[in-house]
Amino acid sequence: MSDILVIGSVGYDNIETPTGKVENVLGGSANYFSLAASLYSRVRVVGVVGRDYRDEDLHLLKKRNVDVEGLKIEAGETFRWSGSYLQSYNEAVTLKTELNVFQNFNPVIPSTYLNSDVVFLANIDPILQMRVLEQVKHPRLIGLDTMNYWIDSKRPDLIKVLSRIHILLLNEKEALKLSGEVNIVKAVLKLSTWGPSTIVVKRGEYGFFMFSQNQYFVMPAFPVAEVVDPTGAGDTFAGGFFGYLSQQLSLDNKPLTLDQYKQACIHGCVLASFSVEDFSVRRLVSLQKSDRDDRLKTYLAATTV
Amino acid sequence: MSDILVIGSVGYDNIETPTGKVENVLGGSANYFSLAASLYSRVRVVGVVGRDYRDEDLHLLKKRNVDVEGLKIEAGETFRWSGSYLQSYNEAVTLKTELNVFQNFNPVIPSTYLNSDVVFLANIDPILQMRVLEQVKHPRLIGLDTMNYWIDSKRPDLIKVLSRIHILLLNEKEALKLSGEVNIVKAVLKLSTWGPSTIVVKRGEYGFFMFSQNQYFVMPAFPVAEVVDPTGAGDTFAGGFFGYLSQQLSLDNKPLTLDQYKQACIHGCVLASFSVEDFSVRRLVSLQKSDRDDRLKTYLAATTV
Repeated sequence: MSDILVIGSVGYDNIETPTGKVENVLGGSANYFSLAASLYSRVRVVGVVGRDYRDEDLHLLKKRNVDVEGLKIEAGETFRWSGSYLQSYNEAVTLKTELNVFQNFNPVIPSTYLNSDVVFLANIDPILQMRVLEQVKHPRLIGLDTMNYWIDSKRPDLIKVLSRIHILLLNEKEALKLSGEVNIVKAVLKLSTWGPSTIVVKRGEYGFFMFSQNQYFVMPAFPVAEVVDPTGAGDTFAGGFFGYLSQQLSLDNKPLTLDQYKQACIHGCVLASFSVEDFSVRRLVSLQKSDRDDRLKTYLAATTV
Repeated sequence: MSDILVIGSVGYDNIETPTGKVENVLGGSANYFSLAASLYSRVRVVGVVGRDYRDEDLHLLKKRNVDVEGLKIEAGETFRWSGSYLQSYNEAVTLKTELNVFQNFNPVIPSTYLNSDVVFLANIDPILQMRVLEQVKHPRLIGLDTMNYWIDSKRPDLIKVLSRIHILLLNEKEALKLSGEVNIVKAVLKLSTWGPSTIVVKRGEYGFFMFSQNQYFVMPAFPVAEVVDPTGAGDTFAGGFFGYLSQQLSLDNKPLTLDQYKQACIHGCVLASFSVEDFSVRRLVSLQKSDRDDRLKTYLAATTV
């Protein structure tokens, strides 16, 4: 079985959307990612929380067999994010970010994690992303997510870490900004010359756009009738995507095919469609493999000529 | 062979986009629609132009075997539209609309058109759309496009004509506005109870969303690397869509299947991807069936798991 190492934020969110408002709910890219990816593969988390982090939230991961040895508990408060989707479900307005124990986070990878086959560097400082890559041994697949903040403030560090990875996931605006292009077809072509041979552009309610093995793969999102909270949809997509690929890697030693990459996108897309149906990670926690498989069928029926 | 009757605007445009600026170029929904649909079926145009309308522009349609008997030439100037895409390729800013001879247009359908099998009511005043339906005899398929302007200003007339049609095409914002819903899945469900059993929501660069025979069909747009001018993309989509369906209707007397509707969307989508590659109708004029068929293959390869 292949193992996935994920490094990302673990924290609490305050979220308001047109459907309601919640406070101190579980959030963070590593939580969304792990809950999604653990439907496919074993996941190992690297992150940091404060002493206020709730046992029950740690338990959610353990119950899914997620390894939390790399989740450091430090004196201080857990990372907190407050965001609003009142203006639009397509883009969060950040009301407040409290880094807390995340402020001086220096990731040390436990020795039991060093042989991980798949590494996912969720959206954090590219300098920390690089530090993780310097520690893990011979990962077969490295994925990375980023955001406008790092593209603006740490561009050279980001470019450097891009040269070391295989798969770049980011949203459409970020892809355009990072590449300096105005057209997404050109943007992915350019980004693919900087290191990652696969680029996955997340388009929110409009699905995704992948460039891999010199081919395009473009698909819509699953049509969700009741969007409640889009937080974490991108990280959930990544969890389904890398979870699926990790599972495929464990089947044999062959290089991944384009078909496997396409399937990975579809799995990411379908898991993300569940994530947005409730606040926080609630829907992911209750999600069964059979729910996923049913929706995969519905999705394919709605997108097949 | 089935014939398509289209009523819509025929005119000249001034357009500015980030790639350039053109003046007095051929435009109007009926022109885009006819050039696209005539790749599949015979098309009959109903509209009005002024004496300044250029012979060469009439000739473009005739060369495609489009029947222009219903295109009235009146004293006065041709309809003109000036629009800008400098802010965004996704939405035109109208700089000026000069109705001219279109102002007092009262469509009279030539007797040779009255037996048309397919009727497409492009985006014009719903009162005129209704007048067309009162004249044609027993069309097998009626499609309609509309826009925010009519949704706001002539809602009761629009609702009335909706009860008489089979297929409603409109863009996403319009679908939400007309239905009063905030979610597109709910919007199409609601609109389908008002008359049209098929709703096609056009999403620009993100493709389309169809609801037909109680099923959803959602697909992305063809990824275009050089968008020059989005004007008429929706009417081109409609031309491919109804052109394909008209061709299918002529094969036998059976009701159209969901598969035929899906194929119609794909054809519309692929033709629209050509339309945006050059200003005005230029790319449609030079478009060959073989170009279309090649791109259909590329499109399916990029959207098939």
